[in-house]
Parts: sequence; C-alpha cells; structure tokens
Amino acid sequence: MTETGGEGGTTWGSGAVRATVEAYWAAAAAHDWEAFGATLADDVVYDLPQSRERVRGKERYVRFAREYPGDRHIRVERIVADGEGAGAAARTSVTVGPRELSAVHFFTFDARGRIDGVTDFWPEPYDPPADRAHLTERY
Amino acid sequence: MTETGGEGGTTWGSGAVRATVEAYWAAAAAHDWEAFGATLADDVVYDLPQSRERVRGKERYVRFAREYPGDRHIRVERIVADGEGAGAAARTSVTVGPRELSAVHFFTFDARGRIDGVTDFWPEPYDPPADRAHLTERY
Repeated sequence: MTETGGEGGTTWGSGAVRATVEAYWAAAAAHDWEAFGATLADDVVYDLPQSRERVRGKERYVRFAREYPGDRHIRVERIVADGEGAGAAARTSVTVGPRELSAVHFFTFDARGRIDGVTDFWPEPYDPPADRAHLTERY
Repeated sequence: MTETGGEGGTTWGSGAVRATVEAYWAAAAAHDWEAFGATLADDVVYDLPQSRERVRGKERYVRFAREYPGDRHIRVERIVADGEGAGAAARTSVTVGPRELSAVHFFTFDARGRIDGVTDFWPEPYDPPADRAHLTERY
C-alpha cells in the first residue's frame, strides 16, 4: 500500500482501498476468518440500515460473518474505490441455495487503511409498476 | 473538469466524477430537466435490477425521472467517486410523503465524463432475524 501523507492526516489511494476490499471478499469466500479480520479495524462498525441492526467491534463482526447461516457463494460485480481513499462501494451477487440476490456494500477506512465501517444493503426483487411500462423494457 | 489522457483512452479524475454526480442530484432536486439531461450521455442506460426494468437513452430516462410519481425529497448521504474516474456510487435518503427510504445508486461514465449508466437499488426495511440478536444491537 502507498501512503501519501498530508497535513490533514493520512490519505490512502484508491488502489490501496480497492486492494483491501478485494482482500475482504477473498477472505470471506475462503472462510479465512483470520485474513478477514486483518482487513478490519478493531473498532469496526457494521450497519444494516434495512433492519437497523448494528454490530460493534472486530471480534463480534468476524463472529457475525462466520456464523451467517447457509452456504453462500459471493461474486463481486463491481468495486468503486474512492479517489480520496476515504471510502469504497461494492456490488455483489450472492447465491444462497437456489436464490440469487444482489447486495450492495459501503466501506469506510481508518488512517491505517483498515475497514472501520461496513454498511450492507440487501435489496429484494419487486414487480414493476404498470404506470411506467411505456418507458421501460424488462431484462 | 480535468482530462488526463492516457494511451488506453481518456481517464476522468474522481473530482470530475464527483462534480457530475453532484450536478445530477442538484438538477433532480430542482426539477431542472435540462440540467439533468446535460449530465447524461445520449445513450445512457438506466437499470433497476430489483424489477429487472431498463430505460434506454437520455430522452426516455429524463422523461422517466420527470414523470416519477409523488413529491420526493432527496438527501445525498454519501458519494464515492472512483479514483480511476470510471464509476461512482451514492447513497441517498428519499422522503416520499410520510415514508423515508434509503436508495443506492451506481454510475458509469463515458469518455467525455457524462453519465452513461445508472443502476438504482431501493432496499426495503425488514425485521431482524432472531438468530443473531446475541451479536447485534438496534439503532
């Protein structure tokens, strides 16, 4: 990782941020919870805005990820790594049994480049409203 | 906007990408559809993965945005602008009548820095599963 200091504090480049997010997903996919924990700050906060659940701290969050039920296969579709190194976003496709879900994830980073905030969204499929069918196609 | 050329094509900095996303939201909030359209490429594609709806082209997409029912108030909570200038992500809080919803948006950009892809997610609230209450708190 390249550290580019500034008077206002430490700034991480988008390359370092991207690499950390990739390491986070690779570790989760491999069920390598030590490597997963190494991407996280000790005081990481995990938020689920849809259920308003929060998990505080690396130990609890690693346990949360480890205990998550079902056999999941996660494919990372896109990572957006902030040019100022302060954040990242990702889209994943998660297969849980026969279901394929899209998930969206936002990350923030501490001054050492570790993930100190994760916010996950799990958007569910819905039927399209009829009043816009004149403008849309289905895919 | 600053254009930093490269052999592989044109790369837009994260500052330019962020400014375009900010202009997109400001125009939507002001119902200024000319300014909204100016942020878009002619061949912009708008995707809603939850309903698998797609809107093709600037004209249709501006109309889609203009015709969207209800009085919406949109607050931009976070913009992540890719350091390589290829994409961006945003979180917004959208108030539609008495309801407040979180929305998530991904953007891609053409070589001239205009938005050529928008993907929106509308995650709905859900009740937390009981089997992880030992690790979570509510907020």
